Amino acid sequence: MTAPERGYADYQYQIYVRGLQDAVPPFTTDLGALEDQARDRLGPKPYWYIAGAAGTGATARANRAAFDRHRIVPRMLRDATARDQRTTVLGSELPAPVVLAPIGVQSQVHPEGELATARAAAATGVPMVLSTAASHTIEEVAEANGDGQRWFQLYWPHDDEVTASILKRARTSGYTALVVTLDTWQLAWRPHDLDQAYLPFLRGDGVAIPLSDPVFRSRLERPVEEDPQGAAMQWLPIFSGKAHTWDELGFLREHWDGPIVLKGIVHPEDARRAVRAGMDGIVVSNHGGRQVDGAVAALDALVDVVAEVGTETEVLFDSGIRSGADVFKALALGARAVLLGRPYVYGLALGGAAGVEHVVRGLLADFDLTMGLSGCTTLADIGPDTLHAGGGGEVRR
Amino acid sequence: MTAPERGYADYQYQIYVRGLQDAVPPFTTDLGALEDQARDRLGPKPYWYIAGAAGTGATARANRAAFDRHRIVPRMLRDATARDQRTTVLGSELPAPVVLAPIGVQSQVHPEGELATARAAAATGVPMVLSTAASHTIEEVAEANGDGQRWFQLYWPHDDEVTASILKRARTSGYTALVVTLDTWQLAWRPHDLDQAYLPFLRGDGVAIPLSDPVFRSRLERPVEEDPQGAAMQWLPIFSGKAHTWDELGFLREHWDGPIVLKGIVHPEDARRAVRAGMDGIVVSNHGGRQVDGAVAALDALVDVVAEVGTETEVLFDSGIRSGADVFKALALGARAVLLGRPYVYGLALGGAAGVEHVVRGLLADFDLTMGLSGCTTLADIGPDTLHAGGGGEVRR
Amino acid sequence: MTAPERGYADYQYQIYVRGLQDAVPPFTTDLGALEDQARDRLGPKPYWYIAGAAGTGATARANRAAFDRHRIVPRMLRDATARDQRTTVLGSELPAPVVLAPIGVQSQVHPEGELATARAAAATGVPMVLSTAASHTIEEVAEANGDGQRWFQLYWPHDDEVTASILKRARTSGYTALVVTLDTWQLAWRPHDLDQAYLPFLRGDGVAIPLSDPVFRSRLERPVEEDPQGAAMQWLPIFSGKAHTWDELGFLREHWDGPIVLKGIVHPEDARRAVRAGMDGIVVSNHGGRQVDGAVAALDALVDVVAEVGTETEVLFDSGIRSGADVFKALALGARAVLLGRPYVYGLALGGAAGVEHVVRGLLADFDLTMGLSGCTTLADIGPDTLHAGGGGEVRR
Amino acid sequence: MTAPERGYADYQYQIYVRGLQDAVPPFTTDLGALEDQARDRLGPKPYWYIAGAAGTGATARANRAAFDRHRIVPRMLRDATARDQRTTVLGSELPAPVVLAPIGVQSQVHPEGELATARAAAATGVPMVLSTAASHTIEEVAEANGDGQRWFQLYWPHDDEVTASILKRARTSGYTALVVTLDTWQLAWRPHDLDQAYLPFLRGDGVAIPLSDPVFRSRLERPVEEDPQGAAMQWLPIFSGKAHTWDELGFLREHWDGPIVLKGIVHPEDARRAVRAGMDGIVVSNHGGRQVDGAVAALDALVDVVAEVGTETEVLFDSGIRSGADVFKALALGARAVLLGRPYVYGLALGGAAGVEHVVRGLLADFDLTMGLSGCTTLADIGPDTLHAGGGGEVRR
Repeated sequence: MTAPERGYADYQYQIYVRGLQDAVPPFTTDLGALEDQARDRLGPKPYWYIAGAAGTGATARANRAAFDRHRIVPRMLRDATARDQRTTVLGSELPAPVVLAPIGVQSQVHPEGELATARAAAATGVPMVLSTAASHTIEEVAEANGDGQRWFQLYWPHDDEVTASILKRARTSGYTALVVTLDTWQLAWRPHDLDQAYLPFLRGDGVAIPLSDPVFRSRLERPVEEDPQGAAMQWLPIFSGKAHTWDELGFLREHWDGPIVLKGIVHPEDARRAVRAGMDGIVVSNHGGRQVDGAVAALDALVDVVAEVGTETEVLFDSGIRSGADVFKALALGARAVLLGRPYVYGLALGGAAGVEHVVRGLLADFDLTMGLSGCTTLADIGPDTLHAGGGGEVRR
Repeated sequence: MTAPERGYADYQYQIYVRGLQDAVPPFTTDLGALEDQARDRLGPKPYWYIAGAAGTGATARANRAAFDRHRIVPRMLRDATARDQRTTVLGSELPAPVVLAPIGVQSQVHPEGELATARAAAATGVPMVLSTAASHTIEEVAEANGDGQRWFQLYWPHDDEVTASILKRARTSGYTALVVTLDTWQLAWRPHDLDQAYLPFLRGDGVAIPLSDPVFRSRLERPVEEDPQGAAMQWLPIFSGKAHTWDELGFLREHWDGPIVLKGIVHPEDARRAVRAGMDGIVVSNHGGRQVDGAVAALDALVDVVAEVGTETEVLFDSGIRSGADVFKALALGARAVLLGRPYVYGLALGGAAGVEHVVRGLLADFDLTMGLSGCTTLADIGPDTLHAGGGGEVRR
Repeated sequence: MTAPERGYADYQYQIYVRGLQDAVPPFTTDLGALEDQARDRLGPKPYWYIAGAAGTGATARANRAAFDRHRIVPRMLRDATARDQRTTVLGSELPAPVVLAPIGVQSQVHPEGELATARAAAATGVPMVLSTAASHTIEEVAEANGDGQRWFQLYWPHDDEVTASILKRARTSGYTALVVTLDTWQLAWRPHDLDQAYLPFLRGDGVAIPLSDPVFRSRLERPVEEDPQGAAMQWLPIFSGKAHTWDELGFLREHWDGPIVLKGIVHPEDARRAVRAGMDGIVVSNHGGRQVDGAVAALDALVDVVAEVGTETEVLFDSGIRSGADVFKALALGARAVLLGRPYVYGLALGGAAGVEHVVRGLLADFDLTMGLSGCTTLADIGPDTLHAGGGGEVRR
Repeated sequence: MTAPERGYADYQYQIYVRGLQDAVPPFTTDLGALEDQARDRLGPKPYWYIAGAAGTGATARANRAAFDRHRIVPRMLRDATARDQRTTVLGSELPAPVVLAPIGVQSQVHPEGELATARAAAATGVPMVLSTAASHTIEEVAEANGDGQRWFQLYWPHDDEVTASILKRARTSGYTALVVTLDTWQLAWRPHDLDQAYLPFLRGDGVAIPLSDPVFRSRLERPVEEDPQGAAMQWLPIFSGKAHTWDELGFLREHWDGPIVLKGIVHPEDARRAVRAGMDGIVVSNHGGRQVDGAVAALDALVDVVAEVGTETEVLFDSGIRSGADVFKALALGARAVLLGRPYVYGLALGGAAGVEHVVRGLLADFDLTMGLSGCTTLADIGPDTLHAGGGGEVRR
C-alpha cells in the first residue's frame, strides 16, 4: 500500500533509464492508444463488449468532451517536489485517489481474469472493486488480492437469500466496502453486442460468483456443472430486468456492516436522497456511456451532485478517466477519488497482471507529475480554483 | 396493437437468446449504421433520393446536432420495471409514441413498397402514414394494413375535385387522421438528385395514388396505361409548384371529418395560426432536411412551437429520429409522439416487411430501455426536468 | 435581363425533364462540389490560385462557419408561388440580387476567360464586375457583354494618369458602377501560391487591362510586345505595395460620374467613414479569405456594418456564398445583394460560358426555391425575423 | 539587426520573382505544413521529441483553438505602406517582436544544432534564447551568433555553484537577458517519448552546456569524456525533479545583472507575485503543450495575465505561434513580443541555418503583410480594438 520511495513519478524515470539499454515499455503509455492495441489483440466480441457503448455512443463521447471544457491552471515556484496522493475514502486509507472499477467477465479478455487484476491491485496498492459478474469467485479473488484492498460491487439480486449469501461471502472474504450499482438493473440497447448477439454471461461461463453461490445453486434443478447454460438462464432474471427502489436500501444495510456507496447517481435529487437514506457515499457515473445513450456527461453530473451534497457525503467519480489530467480535474470538481475502468482491462487483455500494473503505474505517475507541475503537494491543494472554464479547446477523439 | 407480453425490450432479449445458437440479427441494430447497409444494397439513384438532403445538407446535420445539445439525466431506484408506452394521439390510442412517417415511392427501394410497410406497421402496432406519392393505391395499402392504424398524408392538389376524391377514398379505406404536408408544395434544390437528373415520380410509375384516382384519370386525354409518362407530366403541376394558403384550410375540414394535422410547421406564429384555424395538431418538421437548406433544426423549432401552443394542441415531431434517446428527448421537450422516417425505409430496402419490423421493434426496444433506465414508467414521466442542457457533447457523424 | 417565364426555379424543372431522356447536367449542381470537379481539371497552379486562401485558411473557414450559425425559419401557407427577385442596386434594376464578383486573370482557367464570363452574365442578366487584373481588355469584355450590365473593379494605381485613363475607358465602354477594392493593395502571404512561386500577373500575360492602357504603355521604354515580362515588372509597383488613404477618394469621384462602392470594408467605423466620404455603397468582404488570415468572418462583419450604416447606404456582401441559403441569409442580415466568386470561376474552368451559366442559373434557382419554400415572395420579405440564431448546427467542410 | 530595405514583406516578393526562373522555395512557406515535411525527414525519436506534446495532446490543441476564437478586423485606407516592427523588449531594441524560443538538444535534428540557429538569428536580427539543455556550449553559440542578440534560458540547477558558474559564463559571452523556465523542473508524462523510451539528454550527448561546465565537471568522479552517460545520470538530478520556490529568486538576481523574465506563468496571481518579486518580465507559456496536459490555452492565460499586470511589467507570449496572424493576435491581446518554437526547429531539421532563416523570414513577412493589410503601421497600432471575439470560426487541424 505504500508508494514507491521516489513517488509514483518514478515509473517514468524507470522507463527512460531502461531506454538506455534500448528497452521500450511492453505496452503504450498512452491510455487512449491502449484501446487500439487491445483491439488488435482481442476478437471482435470481447473487444466490443468492453470498448462499446450504448446506442450511438453519444454518452461516451460526451464524457470525454466534458473533460476538455475544464482546463488546469498550473502554479509555479511552489515546493511540489514530493507529492502525497494519500487520501481516506470510506474510512480506509488509500495510497492514491484511484480505484479499479468493477468490470465483469474479465476471463473473456484474459484467462486469469479478475485474479490477475487482484494481483495487480495488491502490487500497486489501489483498491479493486470486484464485480458480481466476475469470472472468478469472491473467495478466489480475495486470495489473489491478499493484503490488498478490495471492495465488492453488487448487482442486486431479486432473491433476498441469494443477496444475503453473496454479501456474507464478500464480508467474510475481506471486502470492506459495498458498491451498489443502480444504473444497470437492465442492460441498455448496445448495437455492438446486439449485432454480434453476444452476451458473455449467457453461455454459463465467466460468471463464477452467482453460479458458485450455495443458495443459488440450491435453487437449480440440475447442477451447474451439468447444465451451465440452463443455470445462466435461471440466473439472469434474478439479476436483471427488475428495478429496486429506495425503500429497499435498508435490507442492504442490514446485511452489510461496512460502508455502502451507490453507483450510477447523476441527478442531484437522487444524491440528496442517498444522503437521506444514510448511504456512505455516491459514485457519480453513467457506466462509461454503456447504459443510457444521450445521457448527461458524468463530469457535468459531478458538478451538480457536488453542489448538492458535496459537503455531506463522499462523492466518487467514474466514467471517462483516461489520463492524470482527468483524475486532477475530477478531484478539482469535488470527487474524493476516481474509478478507472476500460484502460486497465485493456492492460489485462494485453499482458495479464503485468498489463494491469503497467496501466495503474502509468496513470499514477501521470497524475503525480500533473500534481507536481501544477504546484500541488497534497490532494487538498486540488480545488476548483485550479481550473479555468473559459475559452475552449476541443475533445480528443 | 398490443405490446409484447414482456414489453418492447423483449426484442433485445430475443436477440441475445438466439445468439446462443450463433444466430445474429439479419440487419444491424444501430439505426445509424442501417444507412450504410442500405447504401450497399441500393443503386445510387434510390439511395440518394432517400438518404440525400437539400443543398449542402446543413439542415440534416443541424437536426442531428440539436439532439446532442440535450442530455438525459437518468433517475435511479424508481420502480420502472414495467414501462407503458401507450398514449393517445389525435383521439386514437397508440401502443407507443412512434408513427411511421409518410415517405413516397417506396417501390423504388423494394418491390412490395408501401404494402410491406403496411404489414410491418400492423404487426408492430404503430400507425403508418401513407404518402400521397405512394407506389400503391390507397385501397391496396389499406388492405395490407388490415386492422392496423393508418393515417393519410396529403400533398394537396390544385384541383379541388381531385383533392375531394382522394380524401374520400382515404376515409372510406379506414385512414383515420389527415396529415397535410405544407413544406413541399415545390421540391427544393437537391444536388444529389439533380446531378443524377432523377425524379422517381416523373417516369409515371411508383405514384399509384394520383394515377389511380378516377377524377384525375377523367382529366387525361389518353389513359394512364397507354402513356404513363404523359400522365405524370400532367399530374406534376396539379401537385407541385403552387402554394396553398391559410384561408383554404376550410376546404380540407369540409372534406375530412377526422382529425387534421399540419406537417412542416417550424415557426411559433405559424403554430399559433394553425391553432386558430382549428387544426387538431402540428407536426414540427423540416422534412428531414430535404427542403430548405440552412433551416432551423427541427428540435430547436420544437422548443419554440411547444412554448407557443404546447398546451393548446397536439405537437408531433419529425426529422432526425435515429434512436430511443431521440424519441425520449423529443417527448421531454413536449412532443406527443414522433415520426420515424428514413430508418424504416432502409429496413424496407434490406428486408421488406421483415426489415421494417426489425427497425420498428429495435427502436421501440431502445426507447423502452431508455425509459426504464431513466426511471420513467409512463410517458407522463418524461418531462423537461429529465433533460440537462448544460455542458456540451458533440454530434455523431 | 428578364427572368425565365416560369421563374428561376425553372432550371430545376428542366434538369429533371431532361433526365427522362437520361441526360444529366454536365456539371454538378452542388456549388461546393464544383471545387472538386475543377480541381481535377485544372493544374495545381491555377487551381490553388483560385481555390487557395491566405495563410492557414482560417478566414475562409470562418466565412463558411458563420453561415451555419444563422438558420432560416420557413413560413408555411403563404402565397409564394411566384417569386420576384428583382431589386435596385446602385440605381440600376437587377433581375436578382446576385452579381459576379471581380476575379482577375481568368485566362489561366479557360482561354476565353472574362469574355466567356461576360457572355454568361449577359445571358443570365446578372451584372459582372470586371477586374482590373483581367486577361482581356475593358473594351473586349464590354463587347462580349453586349447589353448586359457591367461594373468595373479598380485596383487603384499609384499613377493618377493611368487611373484616369482606365476609368475613362471603363465609362466609355458602358461600365456603370465602380467597385474600388481596398483590401488588396498588397497581396497577402498565400502559402499555396508561394510554394509554387506562382503569380500569374508577373509573366506578363493575362493582365490585359493595364498592359493595354495607352498611358501606361507610354511609360514603357520597350513596347509590351517585345518585353511583356519587363512591362509586368513595371506594372506591379504601380498597382501594388502602396496603400491609398481616405483623403484620396475625391480623385475617384472626380474621374467617375457613376456610383462608387468600396469593397473590403469590415469595420463599422470604416463603413461610417465611407458614408461620410459620400460613397454610394459598401461591399462587406474579406476577399474570400485570401487576404488577412485569421480575419473576422465576412457575415459577422456584415452584421456590424449593417447595424452602423445599413439605413444610410447600400451594403453588398461578398465572401463565402455557395448556395441559395447563403444568399438568403446575407439578405436577411441586411445585404442588398451578394457577389458570387469562386464558384462561377469553377464553372468557367469546366465549361467556359456554358459553365458559368450553369452555375448562375443553379444558384438563382436554388435561391428562388429557398425564397418560395420559406414563404417569401419578394426580397422585402427576407428580413432578420426569417432567421433563428439559437441552437447550433455545424459547418460543412 | 536591420530589416530589409523594402521591409520584411520583401521575402514574399523575392519568392515570386525567383518563380519567373521556375525556382520554388526549398521548403514550404506554410509553417503548419513544415511539420509534415520535417516528419518525413527525421526519425521517429527526434521527430516526436520535438512535435509531441504531453499526455493526450489536449493542451497543444487548446493552444491552437484559442487563436481561432479571436479574429482580426482589418482597417482600410490607412497609410500602412511602410510598416515598422521595431520594439523595445527588456531594454533592448528588437527589429521585430519575435524571439527564437529556447529549445534544447538541437543536435538531434541537425548536426550543427544551436550553432546554425545562432547564425540564422544573427542573419535575421531576431534574438535567440539559448537553452540550458543545448547541444553546444554557451561560448560556441555566442561565437556563432556574433553580433546577434542572444538571451539565455535557465533550467535552474539545484547546485548553487553550478548555477552561478553557468550564469557567469552566459553574461561573459554576451547573453543579455535571462529567461528562467519554471514549468519544467520535472518532465511531464509524454507518451510519444515514453513509448520509445527516448530521452535525448540521458545518453550523455547533446547537452553540452552542463557537461562543459567546470564546476559541474569538478563534481564528477570520472571525466565526462570517459563516461558521458554516467555524467548525464549525475547531471539529471541536479537539473530535474525538484522545484524551486519564490523565495529563491533573490539568488538569481544576485548572480545576473541583466533583466530576468520568468517563463511558464499562466496564473494571474503568479504574475502578480513575479512583479512583486521584482522580475523584469513574464513569458506566458504552457511549454507548447509539452508539460501539463489539459492545461489552459496559453492565449487564454495571456488575457488573464495582461489584465492583472499588463501595465506593470513586460509580458511575452509563447506556445502555439504558427503564422503572422498569431503574432498579431498575441500582440493585440497585450503581449510585447512572442517566442517562436517548433517551426524554426523544423526549418533547422530541413535545412540547417538556411532552413531557420527561411522560417523566420517567412513569419516576419507574413506578420508584416498582416500588419499592413490590417492598417497598422507600428506595433502600437495593434491594440485589442483590432480584434473581434464574437461569432466563431473553427480551429485548423
